Amino acid sequence: MATVQALGNLEGAVDQGTAELLNIFRTTGPLTRADVSEHTGWARMTVNSRLDRLVEAGLLEADGLTSASRGRPAAQFRFNPARGVLLVADIGASGMRLALCDLAGEVHRRVDAPVDIAAGPDVVLGEVERRFDQMLGDQALAGSVWGVGISLPGPVEFATGTVVEPPIMTGWNGTRVPDRLGAHFDVAVFVENDVNAMALGEQRACYPQVRDLLFLKTGTGIGAGIIANGSLLRGAQGTAGDIGHTWADAEDAHARRPLCRCGKQGCVESYASGWAIVRDLATAGQPIETVDQAVERVIFGDPLATSLLRDAGRVVGSSLAHMVSVLNPSVVVVGGQLAAAGEHFLGGLRERVYARSLPLATRDLQITRSKLDGDAGVIGLAHGLADAVLSPANLTEPGRELARRA
Amino acid sequence: MATVQALGNLEGAVDQGTAELLNIFRTTGPLTRADVSEHTGWARMTVNSRLDRLVEAGLLEADGLTSASRGRPAAQFRFNPARGVLLVADIGASGMRLALCDLAGEVHRRVDAPVDIAAGPDVVLGEVERRFDQMLGDQALAGSVWGVGISLPGPVEFATGTVVEPPIMTGWNGTRVPDRLGAHFDVAVFVENDVNAMALGEQRACYPQVRDLLFLKTGTGIGAGIIANGSLLRGAQGTAGDIGHTWADAEDAHARRPLCRCGKQGCVESYASGWAIVRDLATAGQPIETVDQAVERVIFGDPLATSLLRDAGRVVGSSLAHMVSVLNPSVVVVGGQLAAAGEHFLGGLRERVYARSLPLATRDLQITRSKLDGDAGVIGLAHGLADAVLSPANLTEPGRELARRA
Repeated sequence: MATVQALGNLEGAVDQGTAELLNIFRTTGPLTRADVSEHTGWARMTVNSRLDRLVEAGLLEADGLTSASRGRPAAQFRFNPARGVLLVADIGASGMRLALCDLAGEVHRRVDAPVDIAAGPDVVLGEVERRFDQMLGDQALAGSVWGVGISLPGPVEFATGTVVEPPIMTGWNGTRVPDRLGAHFDVAVFVENDVNAMALGEQRACYPQVRDLLFLKTGTGIGAGIIANGSLLRGAQGTAGDIGHTWADAEDAHARRPLCRCGKQGCVESYASGWAIVRDLATAGQPIETVDQAVERVIFGDPLATSLLRDAGRVVGSSLAHMVSVLNPSVVVVGGQLAAAGEHFLGGLRERVYARSLPLATRDLQITRSKLDGDAGVIGLAHGLADAVLSPANLTEPGRELARRA
Repeated sequence: MATVQALGNLEGAVDQGTAELLNIFRTTGPLTRADVSEHTGWARMTVNSRLDRLVEAGLLEADGLTSASRGRPAAQFRFNPARGVLLVADIGASGMRLALCDLAGEVHRRVDAPVDIAAGPDVVLGEVERRFDQMLGDQALAGSVWGVGISLPGPVEFATGTVVEPPIMTGWNGTRVPDRLGAHFDVAVFVENDVNAMALGEQRACYPQVRDLLFLKTGTGIGAGIIANGSLLRGAQGTAGDIGHTWADAEDAHARRPLCRCGKQGCVESYASGWAIVRDLATAGQPIETVDQAVERVIFGDPLATSLLRDAGRVVGSSLAHMVSVLNPSVVVVGGQLAAAGEHFLGGLRERVYARSLPLATRDLQITRSKLDGDAGVIGLAHGLADAVLSPANLTEPGRELARRA
């Protein structure tokens, strides 16, 4: 078992102003002492003592001198993301990606591993712990772990990191993930729904200026993560964006509403998800094993698979059209396996959005494929975790239950 | 013309800490100097100088002594909402409510007046100015105006207070409301979409602990205002929540999709709004003049009107079911004239939400009628405006373009 030291290893808390100063450096480029003074209005002595505290803690580092063109050269400082390590795991239904990131959310090591989410929390989280220990390797690195982030394919009560009535995660209902992982790694634990983590990853890494973004995951299941007013919208029970089990527009496909894996009839997933397409190909006498195989068939020009993907695009597009009117995002990022079919899937999706959303809401709307693909989740987790552990609330009063104060 | 003094009349800006202290008092009960010291961690001298500055500015006032049971009695202070006046006008398609509020958003005077929104900005805003001048009455009161808030029945670009492509507001497209009203009243001007203002009013006045709330306005038109993560969700173009022109669930009513007043076919409004019900009664040979008359017929037991309201509830309910899955609110407040038909309208609405939303999203969901009714808009405007003019950003650097910094 890794013996990881307590949060941040800052040898105690810092004061509010020092914590705020760190967050100024996190969001800007290099700054001189005079820049900080101008930005904050703090007295020179206050700037010096706070900045020195952060340099001494290793969270800021020297970044050379300003050029001499504007008066006397001055020492510049910048945030040092290498000061700590974040361990994150994006856990899906059948596979997971684990990553070791720095405090700026950059991925330094990554590993993919199979997992069976229905094996329950003991097996799955045990495997996560084992893989994290392997990634850390030596104890020196282990000592610099600042936090652990986990995403799961089901509803999570964010404040406590508890899994709440997940449809496909047998044995997980009520599991408080921080209790388990916090006992192994003695650091902050951050738990998020998988699609939320992906939405955050896309926004932070690819669209940092965009305050209203929708991430649509179209894989075995269908779901959405929502960035509104610049931050994740989770909702009262943590189910916001869970559009896979909303009522599908029925004109699109079957006359009789199909049974969904959630137990209801006629949900979006029951028409237009990866599992529904696998089912429909089997019904038509073309059995395949995986969603990826269905997408391969589309790419190789199979007419039935292509028609199913296009219909699926329209059904998901009807739901997306409604979301675009409700949320008025400026960017919709489409990820997941079905998006890999490109315009065969996105064509029907765009068709519905432009026909049915408010004209003003689609005027400047960008609908685009995910750029991060499989990394969106781990990058989003690392950013969310960095925000939490480096927040003024946490730096001034370090503790493990981050989410309560986030 | 009222000659109203510049923002706040604080004789200059206050520093960041003083502005933060004011906002602590705005959100708590009475506090002693020791309470403030404990809450903020500021040195006693800093607390004293900031608190004295706010008392001198009239923004804090003495509130007696603490009881002697816990040591020596100490002087308490509280926020003084009477220090300034806010003028707000909730402008609808055919009528408006104007109110004079204090800095805590409480309504002290109100007046209703007819208005024809299609008469254009010059006529309508001219009338608003005239009514505000009348409400202020004497110049002494005029001198204490801190801000003006306006809500309008169309999309508003919040950052600039500009009306953007409104469907029913002839002549308003591109109007920058603050330019006009700011020239008359030399104070901050805050412009908001009408349903957003109502959502904010309901949340602040009736559900202050609720962070995810949906306000559904069901009147002549249909629209929603969204509170997510505790604040208004406006979207990239300010059209978030505009569900009146989303694609209605077509099983519910007519076989042929009716033409909507927005020019599209088959929108929610084209089936289920006040104007659609007036249209359908006329088509059936029962012409009436107003939406209120349709609701009266329901209350007096007319079978056709009742059936139309129940169908309308189902159509709006289908759209609401989708929003509940997307946003996962804990409270849905239903206002507007159709809601006055009570369960004849709400019955169909609830039926659809409970049948079609995610079970987890409806487990603790409360669907309830508006408690504020006609005051929701002015109360929401007053709260939004108070937040803007008393924000640290505005108090430290007073100016008129609040929204940019909000």
